[in-house]
Amino acid sequence: MTRPSGRAPHNLRAIELIPHVSKHAEGSCLVKFGDTHVLCLATVEDRVPHWMKGGGAGWVTGEYGMLPRSTGQRMDREAAKGRQSGRTQEIQRLIGRALRAVVDMKALGERQVKVDCDVIQADGGTRTASVTGGFVAMVLAFQHMMTIGMLKSLPITDTVAAISCGVYQGASVIDLDYDEDSTAETDANFVITGKGGIVEVQGTAEREPFTEEQFLGLLNLARTGCGQLSALQRQVLGL
Amino acid sequence: MTRPSGRAPHNLRAIELIPHVSKHAEGSCLVKFGDTHVLCLATVEDRVPHWMKGGGAGWVTGEYGMLPRSTGQRMDREAAKGRQSGRTQEIQRLIGRALRAVVDMKALGERQVKVDCDVIQADGGTRTASVTGGFVAMVLAFQHMMTIGMLKSLPITDTVAAISCGVYQGASVIDLDYDEDSTAETDANFVITGKGGIVEVQGTAEREPFTEEQFLGLLNLARTGCGQLSALQRQVLGL
Amino acid sequence: MTRPSGRAPHNLRAIELIPHVSKHAEGSCLVKFGDTHVLCLATVEDRVPHWMKGGGAGWVTGEYGMLPRSTGQRMDREAAKGRQSGRTQEIQRLIGRALRAVVDMKALGERQVKVDCDVIQADGGTRTASVTGGFVAMVLAFQHMMTIGMLKSLPITDTVAAISCGVYQGASVIDLDYDEDSTAETDANFVITGKGGIVEVQGTAEREPFTEEQFLGLLNLARTGCGQLSALQRQVLGL
Amino acid sequence: MTRPSGRAPHNLRAIELIPHVSKHAEGSCLVKFGDTHVLCLATVEDRVPHWMKGGGAGWVTGEYGMLPRSTGQRMDREAAKGRQSGRTQEIQRLIGRALRAVVDMKALGERQVKVDCDVIQADGGTRTASVTGGFVAMVLAFQHMMTIGMLKSLPITDTVAAISCGVYQGASVIDLDYDEDSTAETDANFVITGKGGIVEVQGTAEREPFTEEQFLGLLNLARTGCGQLSALQRQVLGL
Amino acid sequence: MTRPSGRAPHNLRAIELIPHVSKHAEGSCLVKFGDTHVLCLATVEDRVPHWMKGGGAGWVTGEYGMLPRSTGQRMDREAAKGRQSGRTQEIQRLIGRALRAVVDMKALGERQVKVDCDVIQADGGTRTASVTGGFVAMVLAFQHMMTIGMLKSLPITDTVAAISCGVYQGASVIDLDYDEDSTAETDANFVITGKGGIVEVQGTAEREPFTEEQFLGLLNLARTGCGQLSALQRQVLGL
Amino acid sequence: MTRPSGRAPHNLRAIELIPHVSKHAEGSCLVKFGDTHVLCLATVEDRVPHWMKGGGAGWVTGEYGMLPRSTGQRMDREAAKGRQSGRTQEIQRLIGRALRAVVDMKALGERQVKVDCDVIQADGGTRTASVTGGFVAMVLAFQHMMTIGMLKSLPITDTVAAISCGVYQGASVIDLDYDEDSTAETDANFVITGKGGIVEVQGTAEREPFTEEQFLGLLNLARTGCGQLSALQRQVLGL
Repeated sequence: MTRPSGRAPHNLRAIELIPHVSKHAEGSCLVKFGDTHVLCLATVEDRVPHWMKGGGAGWVTGEYGMLPRSTGQRMDREAAKGRQSGRTQEIQRLIGRALRAVVDMKALGERQVKVDCDVIQADGGTRTASVTGGFVAMVLAFQHMMTIGMLKSLPITDTVAAISCGVYQGASVIDLDYDEDSTAETDANFVITGKGGIVEVQGTAEREPFTEEQFLGLLNLARTGCGQLSALQRQVLGL
Repeated sequence: MTRPSGRAPHNLRAIELIPHVSKHAEGSCLVKFGDTHVLCLATVEDRVPHWMKGGGAGWVTGEYGMLPRSTGQRMDREAAKGRQSGRTQEIQRLIGRALRAVVDMKALGERQVKVDCDVIQADGGTRTASVTGGFVAMVLAFQHMMTIGMLKSLPITDTVAAISCGVYQGASVIDLDYDEDSTAETDANFVITGKGGIVEVQGTAEREPFTEEQFLGLLNLARTGCGQLSALQRQVLGL
Repeated sequence: MTRPSGRAPHNLRAIELIPHVSKHAEGSCLVKFGDTHVLCLATVEDRVPHWMKGGGAGWVTGEYGMLPRSTGQRMDREAAKGRQSGRTQEIQRLIGRALRAVVDMKALGERQVKVDCDVIQADGGTRTASVTGGFVAMVLAFQHMMTIGMLKSLPITDTVAAISCGVYQGASVIDLDYDEDSTAETDANFVITGKGGIVEVQGTAEREPFTEEQFLGLLNLARTGCGQLSALQRQVLGL
Repeated sequence: MTRPSGRAPHNLRAIELIPHVSKHAEGSCLVKFGDTHVLCLATVEDRVPHWMKGGGAGWVTGEYGMLPRSTGQRMDREAAKGRQSGRTQEIQRLIGRALRAVVDMKALGERQVKVDCDVIQADGGTRTASVTGGFVAMVLAFQHMMTIGMLKSLPITDTVAAISCGVYQGASVIDLDYDEDSTAETDANFVITGKGGIVEVQGTAEREPFTEEQFLGLLNLARTGCGQLSALQRQVLGL
Repeated sequence: MTRPSGRAPHNLRAIELIPHVSKHAEGSCLVKFGDTHVLCLATVEDRVPHWMKGGGAGWVTGEYGMLPRSTGQRMDREAAKGRQSGRTQEIQRLIGRALRAVVDMKALGERQVKVDCDVIQADGGTRTASVTGGFVAMVLAFQHMMTIGMLKSLPITDTVAAISCGVYQGASVIDLDYDEDSTAETDANFVITGKGGIVEVQGTAEREPFTEEQFLGLLNLARTGCGQLSALQRQVLGL
Repeated sequence: MTRPSGRAPHNLRAIELIPHVSKHAEGSCLVKFGDTHVLCLATVEDRVPHWMKGGGAGWVTGEYGMLPRSTGQRMDREAAKGRQSGRTQEIQRLIGRALRAVVDMKALGERQVKVDCDVIQADGGTRTASVTGGFVAMVLAFQHMMTIGMLKSLPITDTVAAISCGVYQGASVIDLDYDEDSTAETDANFVITGKGGIVEVQGTAEREPFTEEQFLGLLNLARTGCGQLSALQRQVLGL
């Protein structure tokens, strides 16, 4: 088996986490997983949603979008169609859950951070890139809040990153690009913390059901990959 | 640890699969997982979506809804709000993928089966009940197609069922009801075929990340539970 | 003239009013007019709509929906289409008006009761079944409010039921099923109280205009039918 | 009892049917029932809806709208809110049914006539004015089709008009204006043909249920009123 | 070059500004630019939008709509389509800006005037007729507010009117009707105050880019035309 | 008067036109007007809209969007709100008209080019940057079509660019950034071809009406600015 990109099964694509790319956002990060580029912008609001008021705790949400021609085939604009697709909503719910898993909401206090992940260019793995880059944008926003005195310390309990793994032509591979993703037998996304805790696992058999052994193989690949992403996050954030 | 329902950790709730509950639908099944009741109605259409025409293959989709007062707190009607929630869309996508995983689309031919899963009463686990009952409704529709001469044989490769498992007060338990689900540390849904193949795995840490060991514990519970559901499906369907 | 069902012109279908069918709703009733089955769930809210606050009076509304495959031909889901049809809105307005006609809003106090009528299976007459079963669900909710001390007495002034009548093959018949309804010359719905007061009359000539005599014939049939429904309601509710 | 307008119980308001008020529409009529003014414009299309193609029959539909400040209190624009109210849909369905009741669809052939009824100023009775004026606009469009050779003869079987009647301060009155309508005990709308056939009856008790005698009283008033409207229609149309 | 209407290049169509055409609106004007008829109704609300509260200043907005058959080809109803077109929104934004340009918002105080401009019949130039007639309706509403003591003096700084000019068959002409507008090479709309100040200029080359000289020619025509409209406005309003 | 940026009144911001920034789009350009960054991606489709089929001519459209946090204050996502704002629609209509003004549609043949202009970061002037960068993306797509043999020659008649001018603290200035734009007395946008033809003029007095002299002053500034943009476009495109 040779991967279309020539990568070894356990090799991530070239990963870049470019911080401070926005003039306006409190935290920002352009994340690249190879040709997949996602702009992650974190906005701090000094209030929480209505249903959380007075509880003393903060909140973090994710939003997700794709530019119409971020993909090989142009898609119609969701704003013009008047509704977000099920896929979009599924992904932005995932981003929010992943980020909240490592935030100490009491320490954040009654503030909300919204992390917008907009796909500038897509080549597979946009949701995992969004989680990974979104975490960086969120922490940069927290650091900004410390700088201006809104926070005393970083309200996080760990780092968090995400990666996809799959079975491609019978072999377990990590960080699938579009060519692999569109023909893989199995596709799984893992969200894993810096300390190795599993936050989210989503595995789907595209054609044939998979076995427990196959699944564990993918999980092992993901652990290693998320470890590398985690190290990169810490380096960029100075943690 | 005592479960609110008094069940042992590995015990499913009382499961019922009641076939032929609709005067109109080609296949129908009222599925009960304890107090969770889902009406699954399968509709056969002698055509496929536009983008599949001429390919010789069939298609299966799932749709999902909840009655406004199926839950403890009444929810606004999605039809009145003018859009389906992200959760609804996520679940109906899951139902469709699960059912398609065991259908031989070439053998089905250019027909579409739509499986509507409507929650009459909710007490946790509506999506797993929907997959499990939806499979029965779909196969009943296939059997109806055989009876009227539209099909020569059942176009399925296996059975499929789904169950939730989670970590509740530190213990791994199966088939969570609402009381458990709303306070569980970890919540995972498994879709598993009769032969034991894994079709879908979705695990989410609600508060603390979980470990690989915990996850494997949940997977083992799920295997056993889906085995039981699978036996019940075969019995109801006469397979 | 023989009715497709073999019933005499003045015979209702088999009517069932099954109370207490929901684990969650404050009042609930599964109503069956033959093969037409509607689940009526009443929800009590301890507040009124914004525009009624401070007036000391309560409010009752009806909502209506049909499961996509409750009918012979599957209909698209209104939640997916993003809007409720004119027919749906017309029916839920009718249900609300009918129920409010027998409620003493001052005695109810500043509370709102929402009565959801969802058609599980349709065979003609869903709106009249909804009014008839919805009344039972509403009163069960009032009785529940008395049990928990929210109300001292039942805030109703009468019972209310509804029935359809029509001219089928030249003869006046009551409680039309789908086979009759789809080919009737005239179709009328009557909402009548237990004491015989007329709350609502809706008559439509489907092909030929009708005469005053024909209309009065239908009204007489309806009076008798609603009387029977009223007696059944009182029995189920212990009034 | 004195009516706010000083009219006798059986007196209509000043009625005007002004034909040919539009430069563009194939048939047009500005109808005035006192201060209620509705512009009725009929559009001829040389095709029928998709589901009627090839059947050889035509179709007639009604649409209805109110200008935002046609009423005493300005209403938000339905186009801005993104949906038509239940009331709007109910009324346009009524207009369509009423007009279709007197059209010979086979004689019309595969053409559709759309009758737009837009309320320029409202003072009660907009739906009955719409039916009455809409009939004139529709027939003017048929006459235009005869002039240009699309039709050989008028494809109508009768005229049709509508009027409201109600119980106001205990007395039965016809053609209620807003002051009466907003406080009437009972409100009924009647659609009656020139020959006296009843096409539609809609009666609603606003507070107290009404009796059969009261209802027949309203029906008698309506017969006389629709007779007057019918005579006026024939005169304007030269029938 | 002969204009389809036979008018000289600098001649407006027959202009009418008919005040007090509504029973309900605080200010109203039916404006006619030849066969283009727009009903302008101004509504006074004794409050401002949420974001302006407490600032002591008022607000003026415009809304715009077309009756479905105001045009040669019937258009679908925007309320039925569920959204306002880009063109509609563009025009109502223009109306609002034009009217606000001559209102002293401090003098108006915390009140909002909404000016609804609904096209009853269209023959080109509906947006310029809307601004011109909308100004009259707005000032009539201000005069009404003075009459009832809500205002001491007219809160306007000038009058404002609008006209279209264009290049038709090589010649600069004013106040284009539909026949001209649909084939003009260049189309420009001007909003000009009574004192000659320019409030808004919108020029679009439909086929060939235009020159500065052409543009100035159109502007000169517009000045003269708006002067005439301004005189007519003053006369109708008694200014 | 000193501009917030320290620029001379006739100085543009630093302009960059960066071509070939997308892996997928047939033509692409990242345009920067200082801190305003717009990603322009051109998509070629080998078909035209339904209403143009068989006419032998092509079509060009523009679409426009802003990332939620492209601005100082985060805006809600239009896709989540379910509709595009009037401003968005106004701008995308402008982009389309501007680009079509310089395309020879017959030479393009029955193909459509869609130019998506998405604002990555906003600091005033996003619509003029979109037109200017959108032109580059469109021509790059045309050049790509030539390379693959779909076109023999460039189907353009000229270049086109756009710039804003305004009166800021009494002085006429070009290319307003957000600080200027939000407080300018007058704001005008000009779309001008390489040969100096005017394609579109939009001028709005924000507070005081402006004079013809002021307007001509802005137009002169715009001519010079668009000349510079035009030269830059030609250089990037090798024209």
